[in-house]
Formats: sequence, C-alpha cells, structure tokens
Amino acid sequence: MPLLGLLPRRAWASLLSQLLRPPCASCTGAVRCQSQVAEAVLTSQLKAHQEKPNFIIKTPKGTRDLSPQHMVVREKILDLVISCFKRHGAKGMDTPAFELKETLTEKYGEDSGLMYDLKDQGGELLSLRYDLTVPFARYLAMNKVKKMKRYHVGKVWRRESPTIVQGRYREFCQCDFDIAGQFDPMIPDAECLKIMCEILSGLQLGDFLIKVNDRRIVDGMFAVCGVPESKFRAICSSIDKLDKMAWKDVRHEMVVKKGLAPEVADRIGDYVQCHGGVSLVEQMFQDPRLSQNKQALEGLGDLKLLFEYLTLFGIADKISFDLSLARGLDYYTGVIYEAMLLQTPTQAGEEPLNVGSVAAGGRYDGLVGMFDPKGHKVPCVGLSIGVERIFYIVEQRMKTKGEKVRTTETQVFVATPQKNFLQERLKLIAELWDSGIKAEMLYKNNPKLLTQLHYCESTGIPLVVIIGEQELKEGVIKIRSVASREEVAIKRENFVAEIQKRLSES
Amino acid sequence: MPLLGLLPRRAWASLLSQLLRPPCASCTGAVRCQSQVAEAVLTSQLKAHQEKPNFIIKTPKGTRDLSPQHMVVREKILDLVISCFKRHGAKGMDTPAFELKETLTEKYGEDSGLMYDLKDQGGELLSLRYDLTVPFARYLAMNKVKKMKRYHVGKVWRRESPTIVQGRYREFCQCDFDIAGQFDPMIPDAECLKIMCEILSGLQLGDFLIKVNDRRIVDGMFAVCGVPESKFRAICSSIDKLDKMAWKDVRHEMVVKKGLAPEVADRIGDYVQCHGGVSLVEQMFQDPRLSQNKQALEGLGDLKLLFEYLTLFGIADKISFDLSLARGLDYYTGVIYEAMLLQTPTQAGEEPLNVGSVAAGGRYDGLVGMFDPKGHKVPCVGLSIGVERIFYIVEQRMKTKGEKVRTTETQVFVATPQKNFLQERLKLIAELWDSGIKAEMLYKNNPKLLTQLHYCESTGIPLVVIIGEQELKEGVIKIRSVASREEVAIKRENFVAEIQKRLSES
Repeated sequence: MPLLGLLPRRAWASLLSQLLRPPCASCTGAVRCQSQVAEAVLTSQLKAHQEKPNFIIKTPKGTRDLSPQHMVVREKILDLVISCFKRHGAKGMDTPAFELKETLTEKYGEDSGLMYDLKDQGGELLSLRYDLTVPFARYLAMNKVKKMKRYHVGKVWRRESPTIVQGRYREFCQCDFDIAGQFDPMIPDAECLKIMCEILSGLQLGDFLIKVNDRRIVDGMFAVCGVPESKFRAICSSIDKLDKMAWKDVRHEMVVKKGLAPEVADRIGDYVQCHGGVSLVEQMFQDPRLSQNKQALEGLGDLKLLFEYLTLFGIADKISFDLSLARGLDYYTGVIYEAMLLQTPTQAGEEPLNVGSVAAGGRYDGLVGMFDPKGHKVPCVGLSIGVERIFYIVEQRMKTKGEKVRTTETQVFVATPQKNFLQERLKLIAELWDSGIKAEMLYKNNPKLLTQLHYCESTGIPLVVIIGEQELKEGVIKIRSVASREEVAIKRENFVAEIQKRLSES
Repeated sequence: MPLLGLLPRRAWASLLSQLLRPPCASCTGAVRCQSQVAEAVLTSQLKAHQEKPNFIIKTPKGTRDLSPQHMVVREKILDLVISCFKRHGAKGMDTPAFELKETLTEKYGEDSGLMYDLKDQGGELLSLRYDLTVPFARYLAMNKVKKMKRYHVGKVWRRESPTIVQGRYREFCQCDFDIAGQFDPMIPDAECLKIMCEILSGLQLGDFLIKVNDRRIVDGMFAVCGVPESKFRAICSSIDKLDKMAWKDVRHEMVVKKGLAPEVADRIGDYVQCHGGVSLVEQMFQDPRLSQNKQALEGLGDLKLLFEYLTLFGIADKISFDLSLARGLDYYTGVIYEAMLLQTPTQAGEEPLNVGSVAAGGRYDGLVGMFDPKGHKVPCVGLSIGVERIFYIVEQRMKTKGEKVRTTETQVFVATPQKNFLQERLKLIAELWDSGIKAEMLYKNNPKLLTQLHYCESTGIPLVVIIGEQELKEGVIKIRSVASREEVAIKRENFVAEIQKRLSES
C-alpha cells in the first residue's frame, strides 16, 4: 500500500483505528474486505487535506460559478430558445442528474470513458448524465410512451480535459428538443431543422449553415469504399473530427491507429470532399458505387424528400448536404445535422472566434428499443442547441462593445435625506413590495442621501421615493427621476398609484 | 473476495483478464495495487448487470423524472418565488453541481454523512452539493465579495432514506435568497421574514406561522440549564426534532444517546414549551436564569428590534418567538426561523397532509470566514423555500379538485379535410411560426379531419386553420374556434393578422 507512506501521523492513527473496526457483514471475518480498506484510505487522505491550514478555495476542475452578469445573458438566451421550443408545441420535462450506470453505458461510442461515476456508497452504481438524449429514451421506454414532443434544458457532465478558452467545460448546459413517435418520413426531421434556423436567426449570431447527411449514407459510403463492418463506428468517429482536423491527419488516424487500408481511406477521402444542395443528392443517386448500396439509396431518398420540405419552410438555402458530416455518437440511425456559424463579425479589438458547431442532432430510431425489455422501437429525431458556445459568443461581443447589463430589476429606491427615518422607510418599502413593485433601500439606520443616490445610479434604478421631515409634515412623498433629476411631490396616499403609472409609461 | 462467487462465468473470465494486465506505474510490480483490483471487480459487476437479458429500467433510488404535468406546476410556483426574490433586488447566480469534498465537510453537523461523493477517477475528491448556502459562502470568500444580495434556484442532493409519500427525495430543488454584508442590525433579517410571508401568502397555501428564535438564545439556554459546551451542537440537533418527535422521545435521545444529565434535560424541557409574541421576549429578559447569560441577552435584544421592524412591515402577527426552534445545521450564529403551514384545507377525499416546515433560514456570520485564508468574516442572513413540499401540496390539491393543466401552449392547429395537402400545410405553419405564433400540425401526409380536430380538443388548442381544395381555389383560409365550432373564411394574405387579433383578444 504505497499511499500510506505519504500520510501525516494523525491521519495514520485515524487509518489504523478504522482498520481495527469490526469486519462488515459480508466479510468472512478472517480478511478485511476491500471496500473497508479503500474507505479508510480515503478518509485519511481527506483528514490530511483538512489539516493543511490554508486549503485552496476553488471550484472543481473544469467547472465555474456563474456570476449575476453571466446569469442575465443566459436568461435572455434561454428564454429565446425555450419560447421557440414552445412555439413548436413541445412539453417541458426533467430527469435526475444521475442515472444507473448501466443505463448510460455503451450508448456514446468512443467518448464514453469520460463519464463521471458516483462513489459506490453501498447502493446502486450511478453516473452523472452525459447528455439529455439517453435519459429521454430511458424515460420513454420506462413509461411506455410511444409519442411525445418534449424539450429539456439542463446540466450535463463530461470529464473532458477542459479547453476553457473555447467555452468548453466539464459541466455545461444543454437545450434539447426531440420528437418521438412513428410518423410519415421527414416531416418531424424537417421541423427540427426549421427550429435550428429560427433559434440561430433569432439570436442574431450572424450567418450560419447547417450541414446535413444521413447515417445510412455514411455507412453505405464506408461499405462501398471497402471499410470492414466491424470498423464502421470507429471510422465514423474519425470522420467526425474533420471539422477540427485536416484530412491528412484524419487519414493518418484511420490508417495507423485504426488499421484501415490506405486505398480504402483514399476512396473515403474522395467522398468527404463533396458538399452542396439538393443537386448533390441527385448526383449521388448516379454515383456508380454509392448507387449500388441499398442503405445509401434509402438515405438519399429521404434527403431528397427532406429538401422538398425545407424549401416549403423557406430554409433550403441554409442547408448543405455534406458527406464529411458523420457525428460521433453511436445512436444515430438516419438524418444527421450540425449548424456552424459562418463567421462572427470581428470588430476592432475582438479576438477572432472559432466556435464551430453551435447546434446539432439527428434521427435515432433504435435507442428507445435498447431500453425496452421486448426491444419495441420508438423512432426519434431531435436537436441540441450548444448554448454554452452561444453564451460565450454573446458575452465576448458585449465585452467588446463595452455593453453593461443590469443584474437586478429594481424599479424604485426608498431614500431619506434625514436621520432617524428608518421606520418611515420600512413602512414605505413594504407598501411598494405589497403592490408588486420591485424596491430596495439601504440596510442602514442613517445613510447619507448622496450614498443612496449613488447606489441608484450605479445599479440603474430609475425612480427614487424620498421621505424626510418636510414631506412627513406635508403628508407627501417626493418622487425623483434618477435620469432627469426632476422631483415632484405626490400625496402620500397616491404615491403607489403614481409610481405604477410612471413605470407602465416607461 | 466473497463477491466473486456471485459472478457469472463470462464475467469471471473478464475479471481474470483484467487482473492479468500489467501493473500500474505506482505499483511495486510484485503486488497488484488496490485500485486495479477494485476497478476490475466493478467492471465485472457491471458486465454481469448487462448480461442479464432484462435489466431493470428505473431512475436511481430516491429520484424521479418530472413529467410535463409536474413541470407546469413547478414553473408556476418557481415563477412566483423568483419574481418575489427579484422584487427585493436579488441577483441570480449559479454554482457547479459538485464541490471539492473539503469545501463541504464539517459544515452540516450530524447530517453530513449523507453526502453523495463522486468516484475518485484520478483527480480531485468531489461531492454533490448538499445545499446552496455553503457554495454561496465559498463563492463570496473565493471572489472576496463583501456585499451581495442574491437568489439561487437549483438542485441539491442528500442520501437520505426517501420518504416519498411526504415529498422527500434524494434529489430536490432549493430556492434560496441571501443577503451578505455588514449592515445595521436586523434590517436584512426582517426583510427575509417579509419575503417568506410574501411567498407563502402569494402561493395561497392557507394559514401559516413563522417560528423565530436565535442561536445565541438556544446556546444561552443550554448554558444556564447546565449543558456542557462540548454537547451544544449535539443537543441542538436533538431539539431540532421537536416538530416531528414528542418531548419524551427527544428527552430520551438527549439523556440516553447523548449522555445528558436528566435534570439538565428537564430544565431545557421547561424552556422549550415557551412560545409567543414580543411579550415573551420581554418575559425572557426577566427570566432569572436566562437574564444572567450575555449571549442570550444579545439574542433577546435583537429579537426585540426584529419584532419592531416586523410590525412596520405589517407581518408581526405571522411570527411566533418559539424557544423550541433550534435548526439542525451547524453554521447558524444568530436569528433562526422556520415557516409552518398551520393546516391545509382538507376536502372530501383529500388525505390530511402533514407537511411541516415549508421555508426556513437564519443568520450565519461565521461561514464565509471558514473559507477565507485570513478568516475575514462576511455576515450573512438568508432563507430557503421548501419548494418540493409546496409542489407536492399544490399537486395533491389539483388532483383532488380534478383540475387539468395544459402541458403545451399551442395556439393554432393547421388542418386539412383533404388528401395531398401536406405542402400547403407546411407553408401555412411556417408562416405562423415565423410570425411568432405557437402552432402544431400532425406529422402525417394524409390525416383524417376528425383525428386532427380531436387532437385540438384533447390538448386544448383554441384555434384551427383549415386549408382544402375549396379554400385554395377561393384564396382563403378557414379559421375555426374549437370551443364554439364556428368557422369563418379569411383571405389568405390576411390570415396571420386575423389570428394575431383573435389571440390578443382572448
């Protein structure tokens, strides 16, 4: 046990006392069970931490706090995203932050090593959710739901090495919209692309393009190029890196790391350069190799129909059929798509942003069946908005423009120019609160008037009500506009109504 | 290793192959290190799970999914709570779902065994957050924030044995409001109580009462009764159970489990029966024993001032000074409070609800200092709304009344009475979406009119737009009210404006 040499003396004593406690019920008694030993080591490590006088105050690696400034930007963006989901008839739902580990295993392909597991504290084996799609599929199977249009906004966790500069964290928010159910082909799929367009246009992030492909075309392409079927998912995962890596490097990975024959890789290389509109779909129908593959033909047929619907929705010019699009996740079975910002308007002083994909999704007809005891399938199609990247872009832009956001919504401040007016201020502010008006005052018995007015200016509160000796004597309240510095006296009994009038006008 | 006997043969083989892999870098080579053995056992357990043909589809113990029906109720309640927090000038913020384990240890007293730890996957030791207060204190210390009024709505996790019937889960939502900073006494504290009253009145949960006490009075009471100082927190934790347990049982716990002298327990017993208004504060000032204790006198002085402010806020009648209120958490240092529903109106068929506390909080002046390397203190006071219990009460009530909620907000449905009108429907619905109107249609090429109208009735969609051969020929769209079944024909080019007019009128 090489760990023990590192422990301070008190931690050693604590460890020894734990090792000497009675064996647990499942032990034979002769040998201490492993979980007890591990527990004792861990507790001792922790004690050792705590004995350090200045332990480091920080958030866990790859995570961060969201300040009020962050929250205001998020709230605006999430409101826009959620109102679009509701516009398309989606219901809200939520699932637990963690799932049984076996619910999540073997769903994500090569990435699934990056799951956060919970410590085995003598119950079930649990992992933090990795996305919102697998929990949705589990929900449908568990409740035998055959049809549902839902959205889900929530945190997910992935143990990736964080590239914080690009807005990638180990804890991040996802916004998903999915349509489950057996319907006529491509109608829900087209709606998903429409939603992506509405959201990206609505957020005014600049020009964007949605790449579209179909898993059956990807697999068909692999088959006709000569990829062995056992390597389909691994090669798919390499192709998925084409938006971040050069073809040369992806080719190297496929040949050297994944053992693909060089001539097979080169055949794939010819295909993945192709992208275009509906005419490329027609062209691929004529492709001598691809047109021999049944799966690919099915995919091409669906894409043709999809483009017809996208034209009716008025968004066909935003969509590009792109044979290099593969998507990394194992569960896709049909149409796949990924939205890219074409450029973010670079202004003086703004660093060029390479944000890549800001929304993605696809069809996954087999996932629900993996959870159903009898394997009953519920076809699904959906999308996920990469809101973290969008938050990052919007925040960077505001920083460049020097835009300030109010982090509170306070409408009225209750002030006094004199000492000993706390009681009057408390009575006034309670009246405002009880009338639904957002109001603040300073938590001081005798604050200076200037301090109070400065507080309003620095936090953006538009109105001040002032009570002092004179006002009290005359039975009035002064209302002051912070912007114009104008003051008017209003009868005490009318002041709430007057404020409500002014707030509704502004 | 008694576990191994339980493994199926294939899992055994997999375990063996893992045990035979090369030792890790930190091992001496002679003996396999513990983490490798533990890992191998775990992986095999997991494999064994997966080899079961029908593994159980469920959410982890003590957790549940929130259906669209749940979400609608929650959204309404959270909107009311958050708008109250904003009315009082609070800023939003968020912290990660997990913290360094050492951030959370030794903050919660006797309950802290119930934390969810993350598995040590070779990084930091992490635990899921247990409340929102400790992360807030960590945030203040880490960012050297001396003054802040913030709210935080988020999930927390506690490994309690779930009593699901009472709405207690291992994963639940908390809504916190806190005021940090050095201010004149009792002004922020009074505002916290005002907020609790506004929220509980606003939610119309029936009559309620807020019990108030002060940690210094509790400790002073313990001191004058003869409790040894080393037992203060343990006895405090017993007293905290008085709302769920009879005095007799609490006394038994204090004497038998916690080794308190019986006569000391009886002296405490006399005090904890006392509750009343501001007159009880005056009475306690005269108490021969309590008035000898400096801490208790400070607490009583503050409570007197607090009652003065509560009277100005018009809520003194909702507040009861109650010497049995202790609060279980270690970090409180001053005023503490807990809101109880006095009764929920029991209707025929409704089970009587014993929901107890629905909001609580208090002053914690030392917690931020525990995180500051130099121990600099930031005084704080705050409250937490027990929204899970409130969700439960509201849901039960709706069930009893047979109230139905709409889980979508769709305003218009696009229908056709004829075959081959998919293209027209797609064009119409895109126009509606692009005008910000919430619209749905069926994802079928040729749905029956009756099916389409039934969908509107069952999901509560108020308006239908109908396009068929006749309408197409005449250049009109029919608008139908689902409730009245009236239909009018509107010129195609005016139909969006007409719908917007109707929606704004309803």
